[in-house]
Amino acid sequence: MTLKNICLSGLLLLLAIFTTNAFAQKSVFDQTVVEKENWEPAIPRPDQERVANAKLEEFEQKHGKKPNILIFLVDDMGWGDPGVYGGGTAIGAPTPNINKLANEGLKLTSMYSEPTCTSSRAALVTGRIPIRSGLVRPILTGDKVSKNPWEVEVTQAKLLSQAGYQTALIGKWHVGEGENMLPHEIGFDYFYGLPSVQSDYTQFLVERQYSDMINNPELSEMAFKLRPEGLIKGTKGGQREVAYPIESIEEMAMVDQVLRDESVKFLTKSIEDEKPFFLVHSFSKIHNDNYVAPKYKGASPAAMPVRDAMIEVDAITGEIIALLEEKGALENTLIFFTSDNGANEDTWPDSGYHPWRGGKGTTWEGGVRVPGIAYWKGMIEAGQINNGLMHLTDLYMISLRLGGVLDQLPDNLYFDGIDQTAFLLAKDGKSRRQVVYMWNREDFCALRWRDYKVHFKVFQTVDARRNIDASLLTDIGTAPWVFNLNVDPKEMASSGHQFFEWGMPQATRFLKEHLATMKKFPNTDIGLGF
Amino acid sequence: MTLKNICLSGLLLLLAIFTTNAFAQKSVFDQTVVEKENWEPAIPRPDQERVANAKLEEFEQKHGKKPNILIFLVDDMGWGDPGVYGGGTAIGAPTPNINKLANEGLKLTSMYSEPTCTSSRAALVTGRIPIRSGLVRPILTGDKVSKNPWEVEVTQAKLLSQAGYQTALIGKWHVGEGENMLPHEIGFDYFYGLPSVQSDYTQFLVERQYSDMINNPELSEMAFKLRPEGLIKGTKGGQREVAYPIESIEEMAMVDQVLRDESVKFLTKSIEDEKPFFLVHSFSKIHNDNYVAPKYKGASPAAMPVRDAMIEVDAITGEIIALLEEKGALENTLIFFTSDNGANEDTWPDSGYHPWRGGKGTTWEGGVRVPGIAYWKGMIEAGQINNGLMHLTDLYMISLRLGGVLDQLPDNLYFDGIDQTAFLLAKDGKSRRQVVYMWNREDFCALRWRDYKVHFKVFQTVDARRNIDASLLTDIGTAPWVFNLNVDPKEMASSGHQFFEWGMPQATRFLKEHLATMKKFPNTDIGLGF
Repeated sequence: MTLKNICLSGLLLLLAIFTTNAFAQKSVFDQTVVEKENWEPAIPRPDQERVANAKLEEFEQKHGKKPNILIFLVDDMGWGDPGVYGGGTAIGAPTPNINKLANEGLKLTSMYSEPTCTSSRAALVTGRIPIRSGLVRPILTGDKVSKNPWEVEVTQAKLLSQAGYQTALIGKWHVGEGENMLPHEIGFDYFYGLPSVQSDYTQFLVERQYSDMINNPELSEMAFKLRPEGLIKGTKGGQREVAYPIESIEEMAMVDQVLRDESVKFLTKSIEDEKPFFLVHSFSKIHNDNYVAPKYKGASPAAMPVRDAMIEVDAITGEIIALLEEKGALENTLIFFTSDNGANEDTWPDSGYHPWRGGKGTTWEGGVRVPGIAYWKGMIEAGQINNGLMHLTDLYMISLRLGGVLDQLPDNLYFDGIDQTAFLLAKDGKSRRQVVYMWNREDFCALRWRDYKVHFKVFQTVDARRNIDASLLTDIGTAPWVFNLNVDPKEMASSGHQFFEWGMPQATRFLKEHLATMKKFPNTDIGLGF
Repeated sequence: MTLKNICLSGLLLLLAIFTTNAFAQKSVFDQTVVEKENWEPAIPRPDQERVANAKLEEFEQKHGKKPNILIFLVDDMGWGDPGVYGGGTAIGAPTPNINKLANEGLKLTSMYSEPTCTSSRAALVTGRIPIRSGLVRPILTGDKVSKNPWEVEVTQAKLLSQAGYQTALIGKWHVGEGENMLPHEIGFDYFYGLPSVQSDYTQFLVERQYSDMINNPELSEMAFKLRPEGLIKGTKGGQREVAYPIESIEEMAMVDQVLRDESVKFLTKSIEDEKPFFLVHSFSKIHNDNYVAPKYKGASPAAMPVRDAMIEVDAITGEIIALLEEKGALENTLIFFTSDNGANEDTWPDSGYHPWRGGKGTTWEGGVRVPGIAYWKGMIEAGQINNGLMHLTDLYMISLRLGGVLDQLPDNLYFDGIDQTAFLLAKDGKSRRQVVYMWNREDFCALRWRDYKVHFKVFQTVDARRNIDASLLTDIGTAPWVFNLNVDPKEMASSGHQFFEWGMPQATRFLKEHLATMKKFPNTDIGLGF
């Protein structure tokens, strides 16, 4: 049976055969080396590593302490929302502060998240893709887990805190609200924010939008019990308290202003105490339902909620950066601006924007390719644009590297993050990441290697009116689909047959290597699967 | 019969009734004033007009002559191709020179062309939308017109030349090759370039791609007679000569280098002669079939022809600007960088990129929304982004305004262009254009007013595999479709019913006014209709 015959006999069979062939050997394209058995192998870049080491050494001599780390995490912001990514003014929501950050820093064009909130946020604070921790899907209000994932997982905040950092998560959490699952209970020094998600508050309040539930007394009574009381606050080891009750849309609309004030307080105190800080400032916006502070109502040229929300996000980003500048902390702080997943086309028009196919909840580019801007005055050269691969888990490793505690990571957990510090610090740096593996819930769906996106499972269009590929996973028989994202950025026409003979065996070998890590380091089951 | 009842009885009837109602009156939203009966009415902006006048006066005092005008026209480049519009590095073709032009100038996010080459190029050099001049569709090799449109039309080059400008079109023309139809025969001092289009040359040469014609002796013999000999050159009133024969792919691949050299010669001479210049540098790329100069082969990270072609376009743009800088002419020159229509999804993968719906040949945003960058050192403030409406015909009026010859326009032709000089020169300027009217061949299809796009005729998807809306015009019964482009940038879900009661009567009144201009100033028939 020749390879040509096999091609004719069906793609799934082809895949099976590739997989079998690939069992024993690594891809001939594999450029990585194994640094530690439980760390994702990375491409060695010794030259840029030397540059980064020299820069960091000089930094420590100058500042006498470790660098601060500030991560801005926007909720459901699409790749295209900021102006520098093609949206902004063009879609009625100019983003001058975000544009400035990118123009004076490094704009990453191939930054990847996970497909949904919980999975992405889990990746950011565990350094592991969610299939490993079991945090594979949004933990919804009233959901129960069979095991607390934090019995196993280690936040970077915990390790950084032990090393003298002031650590906080201010804003949306949404990685579980059960006992001992909020940030200050799992290693952060401070938490102030939403245990779950914006829409949890508003869906009990707006009759016009949620009339089916609100006007049904039985449903309404059952559901009302689940309504969160407000923003929760807690310090390490301490109790939870309701710091800002939310019982009206007006109170909800002020949430991002309240969070901004909290971050300002936290940053000011850390700087005054001369302690390095690690802060995740996690916006409640631009997740539906968007309600902005009164001063931003109609403030966008589009004059619609989600665009007004981008204006507010952009303004707050600018305000927090201005504070750092005023306090003289800008040269001392790595700032990273990103999103937890792509725009949510299911909730359109109250959703962000991206030029890609699919949206939140899918592994099309529209679901997982997000803005990623790195800014560090004096350390990252201004005006750079880079298409190198980066994933949210890499921010975990970068944070630990900067804090000098990478060696504190446990040996019994597999870490998918790659230390990309040198990629960010080198001029025209090269990514150390070879592959982004894309899981959706418990299914392996796709991978990106170089400019190729290989889908093993694809999503079916469920909303024919708008031609969106929504969150209904379907293993349709014609997978794998392959797109060269330079040739076909919108993933429109699978170029499968061009890729199969030379590329597919390599892609399946990468996948095999990936799956093998889960045999050595078994995934945790916390009961979120179906 | 109430308005509500009418809504239920069908959209077409509704449109008919709106149109009837609208007959007698202007839209209540009309902000324009009539400056001249045969000029498109424009929104008066007296404050920014004063600023522009002062700037131009100061300019003339300083330089002692009129400003130079340089228009870069790329063929089939999509809105998303340049990095500053969301493509560039993200799609494997970084555009540092174009990015710099935008970052140090004014990036327009709502610049509009016509749907195809000929119609757009005609608009640029007549100041009139193509339905008026009869240049409604590409004049293909061997096409005949029943009347020379230039018996009626007036190029801006002719008026500028009379006023002492050196005028040239270097590169692709494609507004007709018949007798007395090339640029130097209709008012330009100089023409050097392709009378028609890139693919006219290559389709006789590449057996692999065009085997159906090349390997059929009968077809091949018939078609070969139509093959253009090469690049044509001519000076005002003079003969046509073949300046650069093209008989191979290798020769074709050098065309944009040859054109660059010609523009360098023309600009150098104009500057040395101390004469103001008007130059349209009209790239052969990135129209299919793309063959780049050897040094650009594989030069893009995507390593594919169309992306390599963008790299070459970007480099040439940078080289010509560097020449102006070297010659001290940068402060003396308005530079405008744009495209003749959207990316051609029909020829994909040898086509550009945009995030919008549809492509070349359609009036979806993908067909007509193009990059538009204005740069003028010392005259246009750097770092601006503006969503104001602008159309290719506006460049015609701006050129005449800068040349001081707007008053030379004939009274018997209707000009659709608007003098947007003050929009470009004011800081955070406001467009004077109220509506962009979108025709396709001889059909009125759509209009954009503010952020609303109203389709009266829409295009049917003909390539289901790739979900593109190709160049087959279909008046499907559910039009009008309405999209708020801030809410729905990709024109996915018509928001018709939200817009109809208040917006549709206004839109139809704009249309009525527009059609009325064609009764007063009848369109020319040159036999290109069907």
